[in-house]
Amino acid sequence: MSGSLNRNSLSLNSRWIWEPNMTHYGKAFSLWRTAACQDETDPWHTYTHHPFVLGLQAGNLPHDAYLHYLRQDYLFLIHFSRAWALAIVKSETPNEMKLASATVNALVNLELQHHVDLCAGYGISEQALFDTIEAPANLAYTRYVLDAGFSGDLTDLLAALSPCIFGYGEIGQRLAESLSAGNPYTEWIETYAGEAYQQVCHDVGTLIDEALIHRMGTDFQSSPRWERLTEHFITASRLETDFWSMSLQ
Amino acid sequence: MSGSLNRNSLSLNSRWIWEPNMTHYGKAFSLWRTAACQDETDPWHTYTHHPFVLGLQAGNLPHDAYLHYLRQDYLFLIHFSRAWALAIVKSETPNEMKLASATVNALVNLELQHHVDLCAGYGISEQALFDTIEAPANLAYTRYVLDAGFSGDLTDLLAALSPCIFGYGEIGQRLAESLSAGNPYTEWIETYAGEAYQQVCHDVGTLIDEALIHRMGTDFQSSPRWERLTEHFITASRLETDFWSMSLQ
Amino acid sequence: MSGSLNRNSLSLNSRWIWEPNMTHYGKAFSLWRTAACQDETDPWHTYTHHPFVLGLQAGNLPHDAYLHYLRQDYLFLIHFSRAWALAIVKSETPNEMKLASATVNALVNLELQHHVDLCAGYGISEQALFDTIEAPANLAYTRYVLDAGFSGDLTDLLAALSPCIFGYGEIGQRLAESLSAGNPYTEWIETYAGEAYQQVCHDVGTLIDEALIHRMGTDFQSSPRWERLTEHFITASRLETDFWSMSLQ
Amino acid sequence: MSGSLNRNSLSLNSRWIWEPNMTHYGKAFSLWRTAACQDETDPWHTYTHHPFVLGLQAGNLPHDAYLHYLRQDYLFLIHFSRAWALAIVKSETPNEMKLASATVNALVNLELQHHVDLCAGYGISEQALFDTIEAPANLAYTRYVLDAGFSGDLTDLLAALSPCIFGYGEIGQRLAESLSAGNPYTEWIETYAGEAYQQVCHDVGTLIDEALIHRMGTDFQSSPRWERLTEHFITASRLETDFWSMSLQ
Repeated sequence: MSGSLNRNSLSLNSRWIWEPNMTHYGKAFSLWRTAACQDETDPWHTYTHHPFVLGLQAGNLPHDAYLHYLRQDYLFLIHFSRAWALAIVKSETPNEMKLASATVNALVNLELQHHVDLCAGYGISEQALFDTIEAPANLAYTRYVLDAGFSGDLTDLLAALSPCIFGYGEIGQRLAESLSAGNPYTEWIETYAGEAYQQVCHDVGTLIDEALIHRMGTDFQSSPRWERLTEHFITASRLETDFWSMSLQ
Repeated sequence: MSGSLNRNSLSLNSRWIWEPNMTHYGKAFSLWRTAACQDETDPWHTYTHHPFVLGLQAGNLPHDAYLHYLRQDYLFLIHFSRAWALAIVKSETPNEMKLASATVNALVNLELQHHVDLCAGYGISEQALFDTIEAPANLAYTRYVLDAGFSGDLTDLLAALSPCIFGYGEIGQRLAESLSAGNPYTEWIETYAGEAYQQVCHDVGTLIDEALIHRMGTDFQSSPRWERLTEHFITASRLETDFWSMSLQ
Repeated sequence: MSGSLNRNSLSLNSRWIWEPNMTHYGKAFSLWRTAACQDETDPWHTYTHHPFVLGLQAGNLPHDAYLHYLRQDYLFLIHFSRAWALAIVKSETPNEMKLASATVNALVNLELQHHVDLCAGYGISEQALFDTIEAPANLAYTRYVLDAGFSGDLTDLLAALSPCIFGYGEIGQRLAESLSAGNPYTEWIETYAGEAYQQVCHDVGTLIDEALIHRMGTDFQSSPRWERLTEHFITASRLETDFWSMSLQ
Repeated sequence: MSGSLNRNSLSLNSRWIWEPNMTHYGKAFSLWRTAACQDETDPWHTYTHHPFVLGLQAGNLPHDAYLHYLRQDYLFLIHFSRAWALAIVKSETPNEMKLASATVNALVNLELQHHVDLCAGYGISEQALFDTIEAPANLAYTRYVLDAGFSGDLTDLLAALSPCIFGYGEIGQRLAESLSAGNPYTEWIETYAGEAYQQVCHDVGTLIDEALIHRMGTDFQSSPRWERLTEHFITASRLETDFWSMSLQ
């Protein structure tokens, strides 16, 4: 992994420079994002600029791909909620518990329900959603995140959970800037660009920074633990990319 | 354990017959409660009629014992919330997730906060609560419940979690029936006798019955798994008793 | 999943009938194997007769594919050993602990070392093995098995662990019957056809049957739990297939 | 906890100075041991010089107390083996896995069997051992260690596991120095003073130091994580003390 973490390779004329409203969700995210943008494979850019995302942006994503995505994403949310619940189990302070608990509640009682309502509008029942067979890309991503939590501590889990949270926040903001009238994916874009979701990103960013400081000090990126956390972020970003690709098939 | 589960030893003139308003929180609870009332050690009666409970009822529980209890109970709730969060991790249906998630939310954002507010009224800060050294009886109980969940499946976890939920419900109801004016523990009694908490007991009872039926069929008490679940219920009831005793020391 | 479990679709002229030396590793395996051979997707046949396996049998598997497989399989064994260690954590009897512990010991101190020695012969160091980036198919499979264990009980874990153990046993036996002189994969085939490995299959088969009887009774296939266990077996068989396919890329 | 960790309070005329052959099991143990000997409660001294231990040393420990201890210790070893198996699950390097795996194997196949044989000599069958009801002090200790592992990472688990390993090594050595002929507990003392067990202590000490360096650097005691690890060591030492006291009852 060390090759991909060479910070010297980030130059001023990097394509990243063009992002005028680069989102800021805390120090750890900023460092991980930079680490995930260093080499030719560029997992963060590949994830956040995937053809599926460009299809949402242009409004020309095939409806079937969107429905396929929604069904798999429902199952993803089930396991993603389980992983956030594991964050409560692994919390060491009341504040960590409260923030993780608020996230679980939002996922289970709002986000999942939002999926159910959305799919009901397309004639897909909740039982049909639940009976969907999980695609391997879905299994790989969700179970990797859960195992990061089971095998490590809270920071391992949060590092693996974060690309989904922050990536959707960044995509939502970017797509909202260029949103054209009549885009059939307007609701999706506005959900993730919206104030409520952006607040979640900021809260999770704060939770992560505080959890790292609590365990590793303010200079947390100097700890030997840091490389493993960065690997969790990069691997999860790659698995997000595979999830988009699966949705397009 | 088989000796203590001899159902034939329950006779009509058992002292249990006197409970006029015996609470009903579902089939599994009813069976476990009966199993925990069979022999001379009688873990359920010992727990729900502990001198600490009788002190709350009579209103003559020493205030220091109550404060000691509140401090340990705050730490207990931290780990009890972690165990309920583990129930989300181990859920197999959306409905199990929703109910477990609602319970976590109630514990972390209401029950814990209620303790913090109550203790603040006695001049004990949240930080002081959190820095309290856990009594061994507290460690034993909370970690036993967590391990029942880690080592088994959701039903093992729920069996170990349930004596706390249901016992407080039963105690609250019983003490409310004989509540005398000026009892300094009126608020405590009314909290657990109140409709909101009684609804939690019914919801958890439903969750448990449904989780058992989902995994073991409607005749779940005939499964070989049943004995282990009953042991979890009995052991957790004994650990509740130890918790009261610790609070009195 | 119910569609794929339709037992009526198994007819006498099934292609399965031809296997003259069908291995017998216990009752649960026999039932799961039948359930995994019912419909057109036929996960067990697809796994055990994958082009990679046919290449080992014919001796014409490209050497590069074999090396790629060995490197990924080393990482697989790391996580597979972790999953067997989890089986110790989740054991409920001394006998379950002893058998799971013997398996972990064989995996960590024999099987992993065998891979290291084999790869050293091809000029690949243990550090190089360990630094291999896990393929998504590897992540999906290993983390799925681990989560089956974390979220369920010992039987969920064993159901997900078993296709690897039993499939290799069956493949080894079948390939050994038609082994031609000079096949470069003779050592691989003889390892899994050999008495030591076949004994492991029988021991694991016994462990699984006893664990099921202990929790669900001798008629364990009638429990509502059974369908979920069968799904673990089928999903893990599919993920084995994906692992072979990844090795061929 | 900070009050008890004041390193300045260790003076040259501490009673610890008298230990002529103070064992050395690595840097982390040495630091934790010092931290556990700072204040009036002195958990390490209380544990390693408990009346039960003095009874073994003098040879006048009542035989019934010894039998009670052996029965509870058998159950302790079951859960202690589960906790060491969890250390395999949470390992991050092949070397961590190998050492943890060797320890599990020694516990399950040697130490547990040693207990079974020893108890058989006193007419107690393995089934009788397994059916012993766990004392609350046993529950508290074993489940605390397991939860330290479940909620944290490998170092949390090792910190909680270590007082048992190292304390028995230190006690064995000390008691062997003053062993008088005819002491009925000679075999117990020689087991833990013996080369094989002392080697285990050294191996575990090395595993712990390497695991800490791998995650926190060579100056691991300066990490914010260190205080929590030290608390695990101190709490587990206190729970060892409770275990001895329970055995005497």
